[in-house]
Amino acid sequence: MGDTEETTTDQPTRDAIMEATFTALTKHGYAGLTMQKIADEFDKSKSLLHYHYDTKDELLVALLDYMLGQLDERLALDEESDPLERLTTLVDMLLFGPDREAHKAFQTTLLELRAQAPYNEAFREQLTTNDAAIHDLFVDIVADGVEQGTFREVDPDAVATLVFSALQGARVRWVTLDEDDAPDELRDALFTYLVDELEPEDDA
Amino acid sequence: MGDTEETTTDQPTRDAIMEATFTALTKHGYAGLTMQKIADEFDKSKSLLHYHYDTKDELLVALLDYMLGQLDERLALDEESDPLERLTTLVDMLLFGPDREAHKAFQTTLLELRAQAPYNEAFREQLTTNDAAIHDLFVDIVADGVEQGTFREVDPDAVATLVFSALQGARVRWVTLDEDDAPDELRDALFTYLVDELEPEDDA
Repeated sequence: MGDTEETTTDQPTRDAIMEATFTALTKHGYAGLTMQKIADEFDKSKSLLHYHYDTKDELLVALLDYMLGQLDERLALDEESDPLERLTTLVDMLLFGPDREAHKAFQTTLLELRAQAPYNEAFREQLTTNDAAIHDLFVDIVADGVEQGTFREVDPDAVATLVFSALQGARVRWVTLDEDDAPDELRDALFTYLVDELEPEDDA
Repeated sequence: MGDTEETTTDQPTRDAIMEATFTALTKHGYAGLTMQKIADEFDKSKSLLHYHYDTKDELLVALLDYMLGQLDERLALDEESDPLERLTTLVDMLLFGPDREAHKAFQTTLLELRAQAPYNEAFREQLTTNDAAIHDLFVDIVADGVEQGTFREVDPDAVATLVFSALQGARVRWVTLDEDDAPDELRDALFTYLVDELEPEDDA
């Protein structure tokens, strides 16, 4: 479409589109979201928005991909640093984000997208990609920890499954129940009864 | 309303109403659900349905309450039995239900109701009640286990939070991702890296 120069989205434009999508989504929720409402949050030329995306679902899949990239950037996990430190950073980023209130708003709308996933293949595929990518971050950290002797001989894949599932559950409890301390309580329990138990001393 | 004898719902009628609501919900999803579609699944007099419930949301809150009661009945946890056995029974019931496919269908629609909870106070309150009741089942089991020496001296509340959050997360992954083994993988990891670690031997 359009014989313009924007055959690929440049980064500032992509950032602006994703920010507008995020703002409109948290403001109106999935059911109330329309392309027009996203355009309303977009300062640049509306044609730029429509040039790259046809539907709100396309924009939301792009947003899920974008959020995964942002997580990677924000983590900037130094692979040389202590595995326990990296694990803590990842847990805290997933539970609290860079800003607690914004993170809660995002998790609330993310749950709406998750709830659509059984009926929406594009959402399901992107969520599966994101889930696998985050799972792999945990696997790498735990495997490094085992190799370096920070953790005892555990199965990194199983530990990753347990930790990530617990975080997911706590986030769902946080945004759906009157339980504002859900992520804090889960974090405490997770370190006391799971992460601390990974220390090699427990093998003695 | 109605000068009839049904001032309270008798149990067979309540069962039939809840089954019709459940069937209609799993068939049409929350967004597609209407009172008429619930009535379509109800074999008895439609007036009976409308006599007791005005809106689909009222029926859904009643359904959440009813499912909690069913969980209690199905568990029929013998308080004299081994805490580890009771814990296993509860974990398996929450992960797999009495029938795996029906449980997946229910968890799928339950997620839709959860996603409404931030905007729907009645859903949020009932989900908070259900969550607290199940949390308390875990707390009681772990506390009994500590008292009887089946488990080491752990904080039952924290362990309950961790176990239940992990189950919740696995159920969400199960119904939203292309991950049909999610509950089985979580169950294995949970017993290996959390429940088995509760044994008092680990204190030695």
